Amino acid sequence: MLRKITQQIHTRLRNQAKTISVAESCTGGQLCSLLTSLPGSSDYFLLGVVTYSNKSKEMILSIPGKIIARYGAVSRQVAILMAQNIRKKTHADFGLSITGIAGPTGATPAKSVGTVYICLSGKNENICRKFHFPGSRENIRKKSTQEALRLLCAHLSP
Amino acid sequence: MLRKITQQIHTRLRNQAKTISVAESCTGGQLCSLLTSLPGSSDYFLLGVVTYSNKSKEMILSIPGKIIARYGAVSRQVAILMAQNIRKKTHADFGLSITGIAGPTGATPAKSVGTVYICLSGKNENICRKFHFPGSRENIRKKSTQEALRLLCAHLSP
Repeated sequence: MLRKITQQIHTRLRNQAKTISVAESCTGGQLCSLLTSLPGSSDYFLLGVVTYSNKSKEMILSIPGKIIARYGAVSRQVAILMAQNIRKKTHADFGLSITGIAGPTGATPAKSVGTVYICLSGKNENICRKFHFPGSRENIRKKSTQEALRLLCAHLSP
Repeated sequence: MLRKITQQIHTRLRNQAKTISVAESCTGGQLCSLLTSLPGSSDYFLLGVVTYSNKSKEMILSIPGKIIARYGAVSRQVAILMAQNIRKKTHADFGLSITGIAGPTGATPAKSVGTVYICLSGKNENICRKFHFPGSRENIRKKSTQEALRLLCAHLSP
């Protein structure tokens, strides 16, 4: 499943001569790892950041601390800024972001373990989706990565 | 093997209250992914960057283009700067870097596929090792990640 969709993205990004940069949090590098798994991925993959701490989101992605404090690091607002800012900073065609609570700790009264926001930022629009994945930390990380790849792949449809 | 060593690192970093940031190239996020795989990894993992392009190495890690042009992106000099600069930028105790040629393309007359430099930067020293891994792109990426984890784990020995 993951390999197949990665292969499709690879073909489509190359055919369309588009580039991508990634900002991920709870998935910790899994999305980058898949997007760089095929030979020739350097044609389209520019930069990935694993901004695990709030401080790194501020420093690397220029997300104002006030926004994180107000909406939380796991929020639609932060997901959009992650995707948009990594795209702009690297002059990529697309920015793709994941921020979520992989658990088992990290839940808040308003956001339970498994809450994940995924955003794809392009030049004309930002598409942001909210998910709630069940299961283990490992499962939540895997499903999040899979849905991010799906969102990208659908957007690149030939 | 990878899980066991990741667990050891997890325990040691937490017990020693040390933090780490990562800069990886050919492994594309695998090292970050393992270092964030266990619950509580946010205690020590600050920032990971997947600097795939030379431009991203310059932009995010402040590695002078002249150094990359002179020694190549896959070199001892660049590996040390990657580890040192990510450590300093994030005020982490350790910086860990990987830069190499995972292939099947990317080889040069001087550097064949499988050439990988791994560097661990601490406050008092930089330890840099050169490897040459055989096999497929997948194998080279896996072995590189494994050796980086080994280098870190050995350095944290209780």
